[in-house]
Amino acid sequence: MRPPARPGDPVAAIDTPALVVDADALDRNLRRMADYTRERGLRLRPHAKTHKCAAIGLQQVALGAVGLCVQKVGEAEALATGGLRDLFISNEVIADTKLARLAVLARTTPGLRLAIAVDSTLGVERLASAMQGAAIDVFVELDVGQRRCGVEPAEVAPLARQAVDRGLRFAGLHAYHGRAQHLRSAAERAAAIADAVARVRAAQAALAAAGLGCPLVTGAGSGSFPLEAASGVYGELQPGSYVFMDADYARNAPAPGAPRFEPALFVKAQVMSTAAGRSVVDAGHKSHAIESGLPTVWGRDDLEVISAHDEHATLQPRSGALLPALGEAVWLVPGHCDPTVNLHAHLVAVRGGLERGVVEAVWPVDARGAFD
Amino acid sequence: MRPPARPGDPVAAIDTPALVVDADALDRNLRRMADYTRERGLRLRPHAKTHKCAAIGLQQVALGAVGLCVQKVGEAEALATGGLRDLFISNEVIADTKLARLAVLARTTPGLRLAIAVDSTLGVERLASAMQGAAIDVFVELDVGQRRCGVEPAEVAPLARQAVDRGLRFAGLHAYHGRAQHLRSAAERAAAIADAVARVRAAQAALAAAGLGCPLVTGAGSGSFPLEAASGVYGELQPGSYVFMDADYARNAPAPGAPRFEPALFVKAQVMSTAAGRSVVDAGHKSHAIESGLPTVWGRDDLEVISAHDEHATLQPRSGALLPALGEAVWLVPGHCDPTVNLHAHLVAVRGGLERGVVEAVWPVDARGAFD
Repeated sequence: MRPPARPGDPVAAIDTPALVVDADALDRNLRRMADYTRERGLRLRPHAKTHKCAAIGLQQVALGAVGLCVQKVGEAEALATGGLRDLFISNEVIADTKLARLAVLARTTPGLRLAIAVDSTLGVERLASAMQGAAIDVFVELDVGQRRCGVEPAEVAPLARQAVDRGLRFAGLHAYHGRAQHLRSAAERAAAIADAVARVRAAQAALAAAGLGCPLVTGAGSGSFPLEAASGVYGELQPGSYVFMDADYARNAPAPGAPRFEPALFVKAQVMSTAAGRSVVDAGHKSHAIESGLPTVWGRDDLEVISAHDEHATLQPRSGALLPALGEAVWLVPGHCDPTVNLHAHLVAVRGGLERGVVEAVWPVDARGAFD
Repeated sequence: MRPPARPGDPVAAIDTPALVVDADALDRNLRRMADYTRERGLRLRPHAKTHKCAAIGLQQVALGAVGLCVQKVGEAEALATGGLRDLFISNEVIADTKLARLAVLARTTPGLRLAIAVDSTLGVERLASAMQGAAIDVFVELDVGQRRCGVEPAEVAPLARQAVDRGLRFAGLHAYHGRAQHLRSAAERAAAIADAVARVRAAQAALAAAGLGCPLVTGAGSGSFPLEAASGVYGELQPGSYVFMDADYARNAPAPGAPRFEPALFVKAQVMSTAAGRSVVDAGHKSHAIESGLPTVWGRDDLEVISAHDEHATLQPRSGALLPALGEAVWLVPGHCDPTVNLHAHLVAVRGGLERGVVEAVWPVDARGAFD
């Protein structure tokens, strides 16, 4: 894929559709989360599933993050190549072929620290066999209410014991509640995380009863992290989306006193067809993910995206607004930032705002499509 | 991205998630549509937005297709590089930079025949200025009820006249009804296409009154093409999804007497976590598109996909079915084939079935991400 812009280009010269980062807003988001965790003595390990970009991950580490989370071995490989040196695969890996790649990554990357989640005896057994003594930290994933991966509190200690017996380092609990991130009211999110914390405490008690420590509890996302931060049990936070935010997170009612993050990710689109009552832009769901809802139009609350197809999105005016004309640029705030980034090969970083700014850098999406 | 398999591999060795094509089913689908159009004396110009793959496009042409449709200049560039020599951009392009690329493509690709859709005077003017006499066929897009791009019947003749006056070749009407493809009942689809045909006839009459011919009417998709074929006005069909089909098309009630196409596209996934009542696989919506609905499980009507996240999908049993075990392979039929293909760099073609077959080829998705 051809880069949609070059450093030094004015914003007007960016090709469409393009994924554009407001670098000033990104900086502010990165600093707000770094400050928030530092002030509370918490470790910050941002999730790279959002940006998949070594250039952004290195900035997070420069601001104090201990490392990054990833979901896949392929993401770990891509970001290790890009210079990251502390990566936690916050997900289960069961294929021997993938675990063998992980062992190669651990053995061949100077200074790399790796960690991974497990939730089965088969997973621990295969991991230990593959690593052959190469160092890796193991977190047992606890199901904290998502009903996806993870074990019950009573199942944690046996898995931790198995890991230790097989020569792996038991590093603690991975306790991430994905569903809670998208509960709309602050009260619903508080109830979900209170339940998660109770399950973490139960698992910690069972570990202690089994004569095992719990070095760290890691989890939390951009929708719930103040709750985990205040819980007293979480030592490390894993938010991802705070770097960019998106239209879905914007639909969450904010929690009182929580830090605010700004939209920093946009899809620049161009009107390529108009008719009475509508303008159609050249960016459909092959360039911005709509599975969590349609995008909004940045700076134009008087416009509504009423539908998105593979390569089109259709805009309608609200209450007599003027539609953008043929050829005009329109800035979409994606419905869901993580899968949107995955559709692009480049992130165009703009300094000085979306209207009169200049392209500062064009970052590769290093782990684009790295779902293996 | 690393290819998920090599030719000669058994199916069991294909990495996950991987996009797998049942090459036998694909062959049958390709032949059925080629036979259908040939028997009716219609031109077939399959839409490459579905497969984005020169290897499949070349097979379609070998079976008699006149060429391919694409949606974007970037797709045309990728497929021309892959050897295709007759490409219709069935969409509007308004950016001067993209039109300049199109002119370069036309001038520098030996034997390439190009066509494009227009729906505005600005579009015709910019196209003519960019092409500078390089040959391109121009279709005026008619809005046939989708209310997306395209003009009203009365607006066709002035645009066609403008194109001719500016030295472009007016080639006819692009009259594609995207929304009609996904109407569930045969009666609803018949009503929508009857309305489209009436609008085509009105545009043809207006062209004749203006002293202009209408060389060709092109349109139709995999959900409606027997209706356009029987209309007497369409000379060329543009179906795309018939090559693969998907879970969304499977929800359409078939029209009486219409040819049937088989699911030929699958995402091979692996169970990477299990718990009471659920199995979780390693393929989420970063590897299969869910904006038109969740995938189904091939060969396992007793399993239901109840949710999909970025990198996970969760399966539940229906009526006491046995869940697949940790490490087992599961074959998903994607909810929507076109955007699913766009998420992958490779199509793994398997000969001999999904259970005991062998990898015949690994085709690149040449136009992956070519939305520019």
